Amino acid sequence: MSSARLKHYGWGREGEGMTTDERQFVLGRYRARFATDTFDTMAVPRLEDLALRTPRVTPPASLAAFCTSERYDRLAHAHGKSYPDYVRAMLGDYDCAPDVVAYPRNEAEISAVMDWAGGVSASLTPFGGGSSVCGGVEPRVDGIRYKAAITLDLRNLSKVVEVDLTSRAALIEGGTYGPALENQLKPHGLSLRHFPQSFEYSTLGGWIATRSGGHFASLYTHIDDFVESLRVVTPRGVVETRRLPGSGAGPSPDRLFIGSEGTLGVISRAWMRLQPRPKFRSGASVRFPSFFDAARAVRAVAQAGLYPSNCRILDPQEAFNTGVADGSVAIMVLGFESGDHAPDARMARALECCADHRGTPEQADASDAHREGAAGIWRNAFIRMPYAREFLTPAGLINDTFETAITWDRFESFHDSVKAATERAILEATGVSGEVTCRFTHIYPDGPAPYFSFHALGRHGALLEQWQAIKNAAGDALIAAGGTITHHHAVGRDHRPWYDRQRPALFAAALRAAKRELDPQGMLNPGVLIDP
Amino acid sequence: MSSARLKHYGWGREGEGMTTDERQFVLGRYRARFATDTFDTMAVPRLEDLALRTPRVTPPASLAAFCTSERYDRLAHAHGKSYPDYVRAMLGDYDCAPDVVAYPRNEAEISAVMDWAGGVSASLTPFGGGSSVCGGVEPRVDGIRYKAAITLDLRNLSKVVEVDLTSRAALIEGGTYGPALENQLKPHGLSLRHFPQSFEYSTLGGWIATRSGGHFASLYTHIDDFVESLRVVTPRGVVETRRLPGSGAGPSPDRLFIGSEGTLGVISRAWMRLQPRPKFRSGASVRFPSFFDAARAVRAVAQAGLYPSNCRILDPQEAFNTGVADGSVAIMVLGFESGDHAPDARMARALECCADHRGTPEQADASDAHREGAAGIWRNAFIRMPYAREFLTPAGLINDTFETAITWDRFESFHDSVKAATERAILEATGVSGEVTCRFTHIYPDGPAPYFSFHALGRHGALLEQWQAIKNAAGDALIAAGGTITHHHAVGRDHRPWYDRQRPALFAAALRAAKRELDPQGMLNPGVLIDP
Repeated sequence: MSSARLKHYGWGREGEGMTTDERQFVLGRYRARFATDTFDTMAVPRLEDLALRTPRVTPPASLAAFCTSERYDRLAHAHGKSYPDYVRAMLGDYDCAPDVVAYPRNEAEISAVMDWAGGVSASLTPFGGGSSVCGGVEPRVDGIRYKAAITLDLRNLSKVVEVDLTSRAALIEGGTYGPALENQLKPHGLSLRHFPQSFEYSTLGGWIATRSGGHFASLYTHIDDFVESLRVVTPRGVVETRRLPGSGAGPSPDRLFIGSEGTLGVISRAWMRLQPRPKFRSGASVRFPSFFDAARAVRAVAQAGLYPSNCRILDPQEAFNTGVADGSVAIMVLGFESGDHAPDARMARALECCADHRGTPEQADASDAHREGAAGIWRNAFIRMPYAREFLTPAGLINDTFETAITWDRFESFHDSVKAATERAILEATGVSGEVTCRFTHIYPDGPAPYFSFHALGRHGALLEQWQAIKNAAGDALIAAGGTITHHHAVGRDHRPWYDRQRPALFAAALRAAKRELDPQGMLNPGVLIDP
Repeated sequence: MSSARLKHYGWGREGEGMTTDERQFVLGRYRARFATDTFDTMAVPRLEDLALRTPRVTPPASLAAFCTSERYDRLAHAHGKSYPDYVRAMLGDYDCAPDVVAYPRNEAEISAVMDWAGGVSASLTPFGGGSSVCGGVEPRVDGIRYKAAITLDLRNLSKVVEVDLTSRAALIEGGTYGPALENQLKPHGLSLRHFPQSFEYSTLGGWIATRSGGHFASLYTHIDDFVESLRVVTPRGVVETRRLPGSGAGPSPDRLFIGSEGTLGVISRAWMRLQPRPKFRSGASVRFPSFFDAARAVRAVAQAGLYPSNCRILDPQEAFNTGVADGSVAIMVLGFESGDHAPDARMARALECCADHRGTPEQADASDAHREGAAGIWRNAFIRMPYAREFLTPAGLINDTFETAITWDRFESFHDSVKAATERAILEATGVSGEVTCRFTHIYPDGPAPYFSFHALGRHGALLEQWQAIKNAAGDALIAAGGTITHHHAVGRDHRPWYDRQRPALFAAALRAAKRELDPQGMLNPGVLIDP
């Protein structure tokens, strides 16, 4: 991992970003899409030029060693990585910067910060890598109920504490970033194999708190199933669940905290189920005449019980935008892997399923095909894409994604209605036709997880309103058509209007009651997921 | 399904039971074990001779059509199927018989009974098939906080309401018994493939409420993963979760109710993920010189990612007791199945894993091997075994089982300490050496679910105390050694002392708070899982 500090604006660390070629490729697509050579481009304010309020609280001497109100720290913890976050940061709006950032080194220091926050009526925002795309990490404090905002950055809890080779599990601290986690597991021949797009700039605790979606397209789609046990620090004390391969003793305690988005406590460590490093791989790219042909093939593969590690499909426009194909065909990126045996029979059967739905493989024999061809190009685009927003936003371009899940019986009409509603909203909000594309990130026997991207030509001065109008239309459409407001990006604050409709009211009441027990003052991440 | 009514004492329906041969086989094992030809055998009281208190409440006229205080109904809902249940019933102790049994036909009638129960301060016990082995279905009412006991038998909610062939899912009512459920799915070519030992006398709602363990030895071990969405009637209203193949929107609402054991609400219907009927099968029985050799082979199979549908191992004594082998070898019953493709490659690889750990297959080629040989004998014994207790208990024999889960790193010492503690307790409680055997029911990459059976020669007049002393020693040992008090039998009331130690205190507080929201009067199944 680079030792450079994280950017206060943009993806990753200072000095990182797209190459000139990558940048030109992405901008070229936008120039073609909107038939223009130039974009009205705004300057992003420099760190030293940003206005910042005087801190409303000062940590007591006992906490001073790991707390700071330095300018950089406060600014770098003000926003997540959502589209509105980029716009607000570009506009110099750092109103939600925390007053204090704490970097606790152990559970006792987490508890001490909670005690202090309670005493000064501050909100407390748990912070992993800060890659939330739904308003999950920025403190929004009213100054009335919450007098100040403290952010708890877990980066110092970054160790793999213990590895159990026999059970293939490891005890890992919650603030461990993806690369550091894998680097510590590698000497043991093991891997978590959880690679969300944010992998480099997100943490184990963040993944668990947000039900992150990972590497595996099927079977182990979310981090949830890899959690063997948890330790969670709450304002009332520590919750530690028992390390068990399976249990039927009451409702799962782990499942209450998985997806709790920092509202119930701070995940300080977890025993995680691990995978062997793959020894056998089989990969292929398959072309389909249409996205729905590809989707039907996915359904066949998912229902055949083949468990591909990768089974992503891209619609023709998405395939074109990422440089994978020419825009005339849909693409499936298919992969199997195993640490134990060659998955060739499963790949062969999956390709039969594809052929039944008019799929033609590009290549299917090279064992390292996952790095090559359409699959390789797409994989690279997937990892590099988050770097685009820091120059697209200043160019007045609106690009965002939203993801959901739906059962197969409703998928095709669901897709069409969500796509149409979003396209219509783009035209209405911006006056210019935009583009909405779709791919699948994860698949299930009973339905896919469709992932939509949209592109609009916005106007400086109106970007937030334009974005919100499009987001509202998309959210309304997918909730009306039976989907979930998020499959793996989490709820945060931005998805609350739809989550509140999707979630049964009595479940919300139960969750609020549980929160009152664990966080009686309601200090933890107020506004995220539930109101305290 | 037979139209005979369920027994008030014993397993299954009136007129059913073991054949004379089966009975002699089972009793023969006990005669040999305790070196005796006869057992001191007590008569079980007849239905008409049992004393029963006058009902403490009478349903209002609006509920009379589906409520009853008939003698048979009250007696048949007094007990579950635990060992102490059999002893109490044999002793004529029906003190916990409900005053009224309601057979609601729809959700409105469930709500109406809840309203009435609230008004008369009665407890309300949801009742599926009544096969609880841990004190989950008998009303225990103090007469002070709870003035009376009402049991809600869900058997009239027995329909498969809708089948979605595209997504392979069905909407099924909570009171549907196993055979009725499969019979309704069969014309569609689909199956839930959830076959707990209680399959014939348990219901979908009961399986979900208790996190039942089913047919699949790996991957889909519990019913949990088959639940797509739920409808739950609570005293505060109906909770309906959204039908989704996967979601990351906050903590899973379904997971709060899965395993809630009737304390939060009544599961009226659920969308369940289904399986195709298997077209391909591969089965084998494998002999091992020792149980730990077999366990190491299971670990290899589980960690290879082969997903056997069956991978049960029996220790030598368990194999002997069920007539599967001669007592000198441990047995693995191994099976693969698929509705899509031949699982031969997976079976071949699993047999290699077995060979690495001194396993020798008995047979591995016949596609219907799962019905034959050791596997077939064991399967039949497994299904018939519950019929034994109704004659073993009157013979003063104590036979019971307990099941747990543990990670692989601790398994061997865990097994030895739990087995030794249980054997010691049998000797201390009864003065006679007994027998403790072990098998695996379900397996995970990070550990097995060991299932212990024990056999003791008890003494009439002391059976409950003797059983409790053995149960206490077993529970203490497995909790001390890091296991779970239940892997799939549920908590009920009988497992409370250990569940309360296993479950984090703050999770219990959160769960009680959730219950207060959904069941403010605490009417639902008081004493099960949590105190209201």
